[in-house]
Amino acid sequence: MKMKKEYLEFAKEIASRAGEIMMKYYKGDNGADYKYDQTIVTLADREINDYLIERVKAVYPTHSVDGEEAGFGESNHVWVCDPVDGTAMYARHIPTSVFSLALVIDGISEVGVVYDVQGDQMYTAIRGEGAFVNGEPISVSDITLDDKRSLGNFDMWPAAEYNLFDVFKELGKRTYAVGLGSVIRASMCVAKGDFNFVLFPGTVHKNCDIAAAKVIVEEAGGRVTNLFGEDERYDREINGAVISNGTVHGELLSIVAKHVKPLTK
Amino acid sequence: MKMKKEYLEFAKEIASRAGEIMMKYYKGDNGADYKYDQTIVTLADREINDYLIERVKAVYPTHSVDGEEAGFGESNHVWVCDPVDGTAMYARHIPTSVFSLALVIDGISEVGVVYDVQGDQMYTAIRGEGAFVNGEPISVSDITLDDKRSLGNFDMWPAAEYNLFDVFKELGKRTYAVGLGSVIRASMCVAKGDFNFVLFPGTVHKNCDIAAAKVIVEEAGGRVTNLFGEDERYDREINGAVISNGTVHGELLSIVAKHVKPLTK
Repeated sequence: MKMKKEYLEFAKEIASRAGEIMMKYYKGDNGADYKYDQTIVTLADREINDYLIERVKAVYPTHSVDGEEAGFGESNHVWVCDPVDGTAMYARHIPTSVFSLALVIDGISEVGVVYDVQGDQMYTAIRGEGAFVNGEPISVSDITLDDKRSLGNFDMWPAAEYNLFDVFKELGKRTYAVGLGSVIRASMCVAKGDFNFVLFPGTVHKNCDIAAAKVIVEEAGGRVTNLFGEDERYDREINGAVISNGTVHGELLSIVAKHVKPLTK
Repeated sequence: MKMKKEYLEFAKEIASRAGEIMMKYYKGDNGADYKYDQTIVTLADREINDYLIERVKAVYPTHSVDGEEAGFGESNHVWVCDPVDGTAMYARHIPTSVFSLALVIDGISEVGVVYDVQGDQMYTAIRGEGAFVNGEPISVSDITLDDKRSLGNFDMWPAAEYNLFDVFKELGKRTYAVGLGSVIRASMCVAKGDFNFVLFPGTVHKNCDIAAAKVIVEEAGGRVTNLFGEDERYDREINGAVISNGTVHGELLSIVAKHVKPLTK
């Protein structure tokens, strides 16, 4: 337990430095270019990812890093990072992008930090010890899909492995939904009780997107599975994600099951 | 022309005051409650709308006001206002909501102001004189739907008059899209060249959402019509909206036409 607190402090230090790097490029020319998969990689992405690797090598040399831009090592203690989630938003100066870092031990997200830099909101969790934003406890809502306050987040891009448009069509009759351009930022809205669900169709290297949200949302009382209701390891590819307040989780899984079949891995 | 400049200065003054009101409630308890149509009306909405009416009565007593929350008078000079567009975002402290005000003369948006308060970006236009953000000229992109940089904005809610999910499904194979929760904020992304299109399914009293975007996006070189390619008057209900960089407008209209038929008014 003491060790996990130390890990959290380490993760928060990385997050703070990541925030400085994000704001440095956000204010000026952010050097945006375009990756094969139509997302944007910025200089900030690369600099944060490199900084994480350098710090893990220095402080926890037996651990490994799985960053969206780069990684190193093989171990059962993996620092899983999305340096800037929502890069398309970041590059366009829309303040919904976040930094995300989790320590995944034997496939389980044990410690997570998500930093909403522009809003200066740092979300943290250690498994078994609750979830917090800037040190204040947070918890999910119990809002149902047909409640007038229901609000979800949809995410789709042309290269996404799963096509959820039929799911959105069915859900859209019942609930309002937005798409913030960052699944992690939207997941923090679930953790805080502002959204009741998030659906995410990505697989390849998308554990980087969900690893920290997994522990933070669950410690806030919610539930995180793949699109088919299974728990995933977060040190390898995942089969999409359903992130919810728990209350609506089963219903979301039923709707997904009607429209989408698992890809064979 | 001189008169229009005066109208713009008046609109900017209202926008600045609206920004103060928005930030006052944004920081604290924003008194959110829920309207019949599942959007949230906040105290800020009402206070801004009331302020606009008071100022128009004082300065332009022969004009009228069509605000999302309240209006007064009948004339051919109508101040069309959405005090807080994206109230669901505003109430949840997601910084994508904006203030919007247009002067519509004989049905035509002649002067428009949109204020992104949290980002302190004021978008302005007078018909025939270009579009600006904080005084700097802006213009749309020429990005096509199949370009890897293509980025659109989808907006849907259960009570929306048009159901665009089949449109989204077809477009989603070609382009990445998000949903910022404010059609007006997203339209400003079109005006700046960051998005290439926005689709909007609303009709009843939704001229308040599009009136200012109409003149700003068009003065930035883009195009704004209803879902069926027609120009609308912005002092009455509209038949949804397609807001684009112009380049993709015809193609968007073709896709909409395949899936959606006009409601009889």
